[in-house]
Amino acid sequence: MMAHVDIREVALRDGLQIEKPIPLSAKLDLLAAVAATGVREIEATAFVSPSKVPSMADAAELAAELHRYPGIDFSALVASAGGAKRAVAAGLRSIEYVVAASDSFSQTNVGRSSAQATQQIGEIVAIAQDSDVRVEVIVAVAWDCPFDGPTAPQRVLDIASAAVDYGVDRFSIADTIGTTTPGRVRSLISQLRPVIGDLPLGGHFHNTRGAGLASAYAAVEAGVTRLDASAGGLGGCPFAPGATGNIATEDLVYLLRDSGIDTDIDLPAAIAAAGVAKSVVGHDLPSALLRAGDRKHLDAV
Amino acid sequence: MMAHVDIREVALRDGLQIEKPIPLSAKLDLLAAVAATGVREIEATAFVSPSKVPSMADAAELAAELHRYPGIDFSALVASAGGAKRAVAAGLRSIEYVVAASDSFSQTNVGRSSAQATQQIGEIVAIAQDSDVRVEVIVAVAWDCPFDGPTAPQRVLDIASAAVDYGVDRFSIADTIGTTTPGRVRSLISQLRPVIGDLPLGGHFHNTRGAGLASAYAAVEAGVTRLDASAGGLGGCPFAPGATGNIATEDLVYLLRDSGIDTDIDLPAAIAAAGVAKSVVGHDLPSALLRAGDRKHLDAV
Repeated sequence: MMAHVDIREVALRDGLQIEKPIPLSAKLDLLAAVAATGVREIEATAFVSPSKVPSMADAAELAAELHRYPGIDFSALVASAGGAKRAVAAGLRSIEYVVAASDSFSQTNVGRSSAQATQQIGEIVAIAQDSDVRVEVIVAVAWDCPFDGPTAPQRVLDIASAAVDYGVDRFSIADTIGTTTPGRVRSLISQLRPVIGDLPLGGHFHNTRGAGLASAYAAVEAGVTRLDASAGGLGGCPFAPGATGNIATEDLVYLLRDSGIDTDIDLPAAIAAAGVAKSVVGHDLPSALLRAGDRKHLDAV
Repeated sequence: MMAHVDIREVALRDGLQIEKPIPLSAKLDLLAAVAATGVREIEATAFVSPSKVPSMADAAELAAELHRYPGIDFSALVASAGGAKRAVAAGLRSIEYVVAASDSFSQTNVGRSSAQATQQIGEIVAIAQDSDVRVEVIVAVAWDCPFDGPTAPQRVLDIASAAVDYGVDRFSIADTIGTTTPGRVRSLISQLRPVIGDLPLGGHFHNTRGAGLASAYAAVEAGVTRLDASAGGLGGCPFAPGATGNIATEDLVYLLRDSGIDTDIDLPAAIAAAGVAKSVVGHDLPSALLRAGDRKHLDAV
């Protein structure tokens, strides 16, 4: 079992992506709150089509503010070579490139097949390496696609194999629609390990069917050393059909802390950041700790 | 890892306990819905003080209807010898007696210390054995007390040891306030096993801090063969501070099914029962599956 797990805070990108656009000043408030938790990695924004994702239209402006936090490793999501170029030009030192494992999801999201999106990893890596920028490939719908149903594990393994060949720095698997469970998490990771070797493996889980934390914990038991999580569970409306809420950073920190796994993140600061997340979007969030708080400790008596 | 876990449906007792009393006819609708899921055990009611727990005042009337479902193993919760006598007289074949592991919780709930409540196990067992009724001891606040903070594991072990000596049929541990996490679950179970030997061990988890399903799954990995769960996650208001929601039956069934663990419960029927639970109490419930539904299966295409 790991003694330490690196959490990447994704509220600013995955969390805000489907929200109505909020002012840059509000994003900077949220950034300040999550930066104060001790988290070492933050997914700051996405360099994608402003017309498709209006909430990320200020990517370059936000990127220009990241120098305020020199100790934090910031990343941005990209969906194309053009986005990668913009991210590098904006000063990002780390980019995430998403490849959907199913064709239907890939076509719907980026107008390319999964194989075409996989081939583009090479182009992204070339752009990044020219500027010594780190590249992470994230496989979306790694377990299930909303259109095609269960994802054949071999599709994920093929993307992983290509990512290794193209020389990416990191690899992650994402339960984009929140359907996976501990047994399936372990199964996929055990199949992936021989393919990716020593490449750092990350996991991205949603709580849509209640199993997000259980799946994240199973991933850690299976050797995952990096987990994405979102302040307050921001991301998708948890109270709507097909909800897609991210696992909440503070809920994950609580679970890991009490299971003896360090994350660098201060729980009270994480709960405070969840409160800021709720405030900047103006609606309730699915976070459990934001409602219930930490448990009582003897040293707090 | 278990291939099968027995789920006990607790919506009718633990789920409804803190709700405003609902008519017996509404309880019978909920009973019919949960009985239709294939579940083999149902906690039907509690024989406790009607003034303290008005929602359970109809315990005997409800008990008189249970003959409708001869294939189901019904139980009732009791808090005293008097309650045990009433349960036996009402025809129950299985009773649960709760002992809180902390003195503050025990005093607040039943006006006795934890040791006094433990001593009373003998009296309960005597009443039950006279009528060949099964007795289960459930340890409340097994990990944390809202007043006293963390529960020393030795307190739980002492209750377990007494329960074994008194000859109970089953033993369970309850995370009454929803604070535990996988690491602490495993730790307590590993300490309990030498004390309880072959006594069937059950777990009761709440999702108050988001970790309910993760804890339940950890318990199964640690050898627990029985889990309580509530249709819709009924039980406590999940949207209030200090929320105490039970884990939702349908969310648990989903997680276990996809991890290769059978429960006898049909998932669509469990989701339907969650809908009935929501309907009879007239407010939203925390169930994830009730909102998001099952994942797409290839055979459903």
